[in-house]
Amino acid sequence: MDLTLMGQAAKQAAFQLATASTAQKNKALSIIADELEANANTILAANAQDIELGRQAGLTDALLDRLLLNESRLEGIAADVRNVINLNDPVGSEIDSKILENGMSLSRRRVPLGVVGVIYEARPNVTIDIAALCLKTGNASILRGGKETFFSNMELVKVIQSALEKAGLPAASVQYIEKPDRELVSQLLKLDEYVDMIIPRGGAGLHKMCKENSTIPVIIGGFGISHIFVDETADLAKSIDVIENAKVQRPSACNSLDTLLVHEKIAAEFLPKLAEQLGEKVALVVEPTAKAILGENPQVRDAQEGDFDTEWLSYTLGIKVVTDIAEAIDHMQVHNASHSDAIMTESIRNAELFINSAGSAAVYVNASTRFTDGAQFGLGAEVAVSTQKLHARGPMGLEELTSYKWVGKADYLIRS
Amino acid sequence: MDLTLMGQAAKQAAFQLATASTAQKNKALSIIADELEANANTILAANAQDIELGRQAGLTDALLDRLLLNESRLEGIAADVRNVINLNDPVGSEIDSKILENGMSLSRRRVPLGVVGVIYEARPNVTIDIAALCLKTGNASILRGGKETFFSNMELVKVIQSALEKAGLPAASVQYIEKPDRELVSQLLKLDEYVDMIIPRGGAGLHKMCKENSTIPVIIGGFGISHIFVDETADLAKSIDVIENAKVQRPSACNSLDTLLVHEKIAAEFLPKLAEQLGEKVALVVEPTAKAILGENPQVRDAQEGDFDTEWLSYTLGIKVVTDIAEAIDHMQVHNASHSDAIMTESIRNAELFINSAGSAAVYVNASTRFTDGAQFGLGAEVAVSTQKLHARGPMGLEELTSYKWVGKADYLIRS
Repeated sequence: MDLTLMGQAAKQAAFQLATASTAQKNKALSIIADELEANANTILAANAQDIELGRQAGLTDALLDRLLLNESRLEGIAADVRNVINLNDPVGSEIDSKILENGMSLSRRRVPLGVVGVIYEARPNVTIDIAALCLKTGNASILRGGKETFFSNMELVKVIQSALEKAGLPAASVQYIEKPDRELVSQLLKLDEYVDMIIPRGGAGLHKMCKENSTIPVIIGGFGISHIFVDETADLAKSIDVIENAKVQRPSACNSLDTLLVHEKIAAEFLPKLAEQLGEKVALVVEPTAKAILGENPQVRDAQEGDFDTEWLSYTLGIKVVTDIAEAIDHMQVHNASHSDAIMTESIRNAELFINSAGSAAVYVNASTRFTDGAQFGLGAEVAVSTQKLHARGPMGLEELTSYKWVGKADYLIRS
Repeated sequence: MDLTLMGQAAKQAAFQLATASTAQKNKALSIIADELEANANTILAANAQDIELGRQAGLTDALLDRLLLNESRLEGIAADVRNVINLNDPVGSEIDSKILENGMSLSRRRVPLGVVGVIYEARPNVTIDIAALCLKTGNASILRGGKETFFSNMELVKVIQSALEKAGLPAASVQYIEKPDRELVSQLLKLDEYVDMIIPRGGAGLHKMCKENSTIPVIIGGFGISHIFVDETADLAKSIDVIENAKVQRPSACNSLDTLLVHEKIAAEFLPKLAEQLGEKVALVVEPTAKAILGENPQVRDAQEGDFDTEWLSYTLGIKVVTDIAEAIDHMQVHNASHSDAIMTESIRNAELFINSAGSAAVYVNASTRFTDGAQFGLGAEVAVSTQKLHARGPMGLEELTSYKWVGKADYLIRS
């Protein structure tokens, strides 16, 4: 398997996709959705093979569940593809059009990025999802899924490539790295001559590996400690509802609350009420001032070194009492506030200070951190959640799968 | 010299800069401009040292000229800083504001990137230029200039840091890597915990080195073969004027013309006229069909392998006759059209096909490739010219030194 050849084929396909009409791209998507349903038996049989091998390899039930396809999940995946058809195609729209003094009409036109490399883990739906979003935006993609989904992905990619050809688009618009060698991932990360962007969808280790080895720009995302600061002016009862939502609605999500910072003037009243509402299912990890207020309690344990740098992803909440908003901001700057953070306050001044000081991709005033999500933000699709600052930050939709080119039109104009 | 400490100081400074008002940043810029003039004697004496050492080291006259400061150049640099004061500060403006169905007011607010690392070569004006642009956009910067400008840069950075303190901003907002060890550049490129973007300003070798070694996003730019395609419908006389401008106005610029592609239907009439107008100062490197038209001529030589992949940066022009626009586009896709390319045509269809097919950062219809430039595009300032597709493409102005954060405001809203 020669990744250079794959890169060249992808780049060639990308040139064709760049001038494909929205109608043609939508036609391919429509055929993909239809063929997923028409080939359900083959796909589910391949998936059963993956499940059987996974069981033999001792995968956990949770992992097996992520891996599993069935009729209804496959219908869901097809429905998601049809949803992408209905999204607006950003390619070709122009931004910042203007006429220069010399008469040139100048604008920035949205164009596909070119070739997107995606490295992901177990879930087979990602294969269809990312291929569909790349296709809609005129990008070729090179996919590399987890080895646990090998047989499922082979069938899914076969469906995609056959649909592409039926729609008159190159099959190489979506390619899949079949062999499990990790060496091939390293090769992919060096294909900067052909690949324009790498999206890792997986754990922190995968992101770190991509950042350290890629010569292609990488979208780093998904990590960071989430904080809520309860200011002295906040409505306490409503703040408790928001904190409960941010912590318990889906603790495994990366936008769920990790650390609560409470203004000292309200801490004595606020913390006991909060502990009561959260109940026994949430463990509270507290520094001494909070401990003094909450007292000995099976729900409470003393914070240790590193606790305020921990993404809990579970029913655990760090709590610290601070003297004011400045101390809250200092704490957040030291403890990697880079994903989703919120302030509960009635003060416009403190709200603005918090918004501008927090180094987070998403900052909320009187709202749960759980809103950081492409669907919640109305993007229609979510390619990834970026926590870096270049290109795109926070939830990435279709527009973030595009670049732009400058287009200048004139009447045989020369530069003087 | 510990680059980790520099990184930490820069990140700390960046947090302060992020909430500095435009007035405060402009005040610092104004003091920088004043102090450049007030300290002219010291700066010019330091520069004289650099020039003397450069002369001893055998630098070419061209390099010595790039290195040289004098009263009027220093005044020009101060004037450039005052120009930055007058530019619009992009920080804090909001894009795509909307109210979600659940009542949340959501927008993307422009914020500084954070810390920008800049690696550049001989010209001392870059030190002031980039420091001023970063400061205006609330970014801290870590600078690394060429060793040939060491004494000049030491004085310039002293002026900047003293001005920052006078304006109540941290001196670490602009830091300079003094020691010449190349090892320090490698260290800088790995400081991804503190530095958000690397801008290399120099040759292809520097860009390649940054791309291969950096764990921080790098702005790659400035390279690519520039093409003009003369379609059969073009106005020939006017096209010759545009080609002459693109080739000879400043051949050393990266947006100057490298390769001319001519439609075969007009080649016999067009090429001799072009050769005559360009005259002896432009060498023509031609493939056989063009050769057959132009004949034996001291101005003309046969193209060799690699000539159409060469950025000439001199009074040389590659010429190829093509059967149609499709062959022109094919040629450009193979021969790295990624910077600035143009079509001469009267056909709307061909103009649009060319615009959408060219893989270039800037595409022109009936205009010279020489327009790709921040000042020409009305950006007010040019930080770099990017030829990559993520974040920014083509000339980068102040806006491209910013990121955004999502800001959601609501009334104690929870996710259901």
